[in-house]
Amino acid sequence: MENDDVVFVGNKPVMNYVLAVVTQYNGGADIVTIKARGRAISRAVDVAEVARNRFLTDMEVKNIIISTEKVTSERGESNVSAIEIILGKKPE
Amino acid sequence: MENDDVVFVGNKPVMNYVLAVVTQYNGGADIVTIKARGRAISRAVDVAEVARNRFLTDMEVKNIIISTEKVTSERGESNVSAIEIILGKKPE
Repeated sequence: MENDDVVFVGNKPVMNYVLAVVTQYNGGADIVTIKARGRAISRAVDVAEVARNRFLTDMEVKNIIISTEKVTSERGESNVSAIEIILGKKPE
Repeated sequence: MENDDVVFVGNKPVMNYVLAVVTQYNGGADIVTIKARGRAISRAVDVAEVARNRFLTDMEVKNIIISTEKVTSERGESNVSAIEIILGKKPE
């Protein structure tokens, strides 16, 4: 999978990321992966839902993967949850 | 699916919900569904990850479903994202 087809969700407004998903899909990506960690996970779900319900109604959720990643910060190593939501074209 | 096998994640600490999942599983539930809406979605992923990595290592994620629900509040109707994480026993 090329990196262009991944949207990393952070702390910006939901619509910023929805626009990124729409742009990648309209640019020819068959699959768009939405990734997020920690508290941004809720926003990633919002992005997927808004994108497919309002803008890309021919897309569907192909798969959702959750995992745990290790993050090293000033306070030492800690675990953070992560999500990947894979959107793709509905079968015709 | 019986209602006992569903854990609704809200604003309490993650471990409260992990304990609920463990209790239901040890009480005989083959499938435990973790549900959350809005900002609690991130916590629901934490609950699933902590439960299966630390306590119930013979469980795995069977399916994850995201959806949009309509919520009516004082400020009118609004949409909120929701998640269902379905945990079940790994095939032996």
